[in-house]
Amino acid sequence: MIQTDILIIGAGPTGLFAVFEAGLLQLKCHLIDALPQPGGQCAEIYPKKPIYDIPGFPEVLAGDLVDNLMKQIEPFQPGFTLGERADTIEKLEDGSFIVTTNKGTQHKAPIVAIAGGLGSFEPRKPLLENLKKYEDNGVSYMVKDPEVYRDKKVVIAGGGDSALDWSIFLADVASEVTLVHRRNEFRGALDSVEKVQQLKNKGKINLITPAEIEGLNGEDKLESVLIRKKTTAIEDITLEVDHFIALFGLSPKLGPIGDWGLEIEKNAIKVDTFDYQTNVPGIYAIGDINTYNGKLKLILCGFHEATLMCQSAYQRIFPDKKYVMKYTTVGGVTGFDGSKKEAPKAVVKAID
Amino acid sequence: MIQTDILIIGAGPTGLFAVFEAGLLQLKCHLIDALPQPGGQCAEIYPKKPIYDIPGFPEVLAGDLVDNLMKQIEPFQPGFTLGERADTIEKLEDGSFIVTTNKGTQHKAPIVAIAGGLGSFEPRKPLLENLKKYEDNGVSYMVKDPEVYRDKKVVIAGGGDSALDWSIFLADVASEVTLVHRRNEFRGALDSVEKVQQLKNKGKINLITPAEIEGLNGEDKLESVLIRKKTTAIEDITLEVDHFIALFGLSPKLGPIGDWGLEIEKNAIKVDTFDYQTNVPGIYAIGDINTYNGKLKLILCGFHEATLMCQSAYQRIFPDKKYVMKYTTVGGVTGFDGSKKEAPKAVVKAID
Repeated sequence: MIQTDILIIGAGPTGLFAVFEAGLLQLKCHLIDALPQPGGQCAEIYPKKPIYDIPGFPEVLAGDLVDNLMKQIEPFQPGFTLGERADTIEKLEDGSFIVTTNKGTQHKAPIVAIAGGLGSFEPRKPLLENLKKYEDNGVSYMVKDPEVYRDKKVVIAGGGDSALDWSIFLADVASEVTLVHRRNEFRGALDSVEKVQQLKNKGKINLITPAEIEGLNGEDKLESVLIRKKTTAIEDITLEVDHFIALFGLSPKLGPIGDWGLEIEKNAIKVDTFDYQTNVPGIYAIGDINTYNGKLKLILCGFHEATLMCQSAYQRIFPDKKYVMKYTTVGGVTGFDGSKKEAPKAVVKAID
Repeated sequence: MIQTDILIIGAGPTGLFAVFEAGLLQLKCHLIDALPQPGGQCAEIYPKKPIYDIPGFPEVLAGDLVDNLMKQIEPFQPGFTLGERADTIEKLEDGSFIVTTNKGTQHKAPIVAIAGGLGSFEPRKPLLENLKKYEDNGVSYMVKDPEVYRDKKVVIAGGGDSALDWSIFLADVASEVTLVHRRNEFRGALDSVEKVQQLKNKGKINLITPAEIEGLNGEDKLESVLIRKKTTAIEDITLEVDHFIALFGLSPKLGPIGDWGLEIEKNAIKVDTFDYQTNVPGIYAIGDINTYNGKLKLILCGFHEATLMCQSAYQRIFPDKKYVMKYTTVGGVTGFDGSKKEAPKAVVKAID
């Protein structure tokens, strides 16, 4: 059982920054995210796109913002449960919560902060008869660890940035990469499309378009896929593969959190603007997943909400202590790893 | 008369960022600040000190944060009235406001956003009989434009960072710099103290300690100061100078804004967390100057408040329009200067 002070569900920018503010209050955090890496949408959907409205950054790539936040929270050593979705919550008699993921990992904390963005990103799945049989057994919907595909035969389906970018990346990792898309046209960053064209010309990516995956075969695990190419005639191709990665996009779903007894309005969790607490004491909701009068779904608002939430969490955990806020410029930042950052101190020195 | 959409009182980080959020809504801003440059405390009091709790910056110097914000708002061409304090406010029949500064500059706008931080920074003044006579006539309490002192004889009094740093800077500008302090010890950044020591050794700064300015003389303008040196004996020195800069620190005062009919609590302006509006419709208060249940005086909170304020201001100015928020990553940033920043667009392109 993983134990922490604040259990944060969702490792996007808001959830990550909460770790920093909690750390200043000497509270430890652990984050759960359905995606395989921290950063939420910024890392998974648009890491190379610029954001212009983060205060103090005239322009910052979403991926760089995540990297900066990871560096900022490093002194506070957060724990991560990645690639798992928070499924159930249980309130214990002592007022603390146990959150269990879809893979059975259990987490215990006195405070739960839901920073789930638009919800957990669920993949759009192809309509194939025996799909479920091969899930985690040859079929996947996102790339969690590219090393899984080293020296394997991989077929990727999809026509967007993920399909393009992973085809490019895995061309150097897998023994064979086949990219299948139902159209000849791909939609993505110009240089990704051009790179795939080059790799195809060099024979490093095997391209089959317009085509769709029509069947999956294999005894215990995936062994081959049936690809139907639809030009003037229909052509069926059976391709031996170890892995089929279906990259048809991720769509956010509120998911099981919707059943946690929290007050929901328009697919978002209602909170009080005093501390961004939900109707269940001890459970907070911060960032895009919450709603209140005047709410704007902006990253910079999530940062503010995370900060006020931590103050309230502190008071809940230590009802008898009074926390006196100290500016970081004055008090510095003392990490759980023993690190200390602080402004150079003024000296008092005679001039003679 | 200066006219604008949102008149922002206070050009610290919160006021500056409000320009950006207003700009996204196509609203123009003008800022008034008692200090001679934008940036508030960050620029005036601790420009070279690091801040650790700006989201996305593991560490940023306060002065650099201001520079970044100035760059971020550049496309929205804000106006500035600097070195003047907002003194009076008048509400016109059409619902708009006229704000007049202590120098008589008038500003008209339908929306006033007070982003005054801890208040306007008022200098601590020395107790000298005829001080008022020489104000703006040889005596000053902050350096607004260093060029004023070119090839002039300057005496600076004070023992902190400002006195040290301006003595260093003006040593290359003025014809003569004399630094007077009531102690032998100075309090400031180590390298500033050491630099003054070097300049004194080279004869570029004339140092008189422990000593105080005891008198000001001159017909129409300052012509000399009386310096009393207090070692074992008392020694009076009359020094011919063009300028006396008394740098004894700035202390923030709510000042005339306290008389604007706004609801005040603990030296701060009470606001509603829906839109950070005060009890006077059309006047908002954002950043450290406001108060509400759960308020934290943090720059990152000011950013959030500025953003929600702008939405409300927009609705006040255009009650019949419905603003649909567009993410900057999707819609880009279109400046009033014709500039356009936007994310590279995806292409739809066949691979053959």
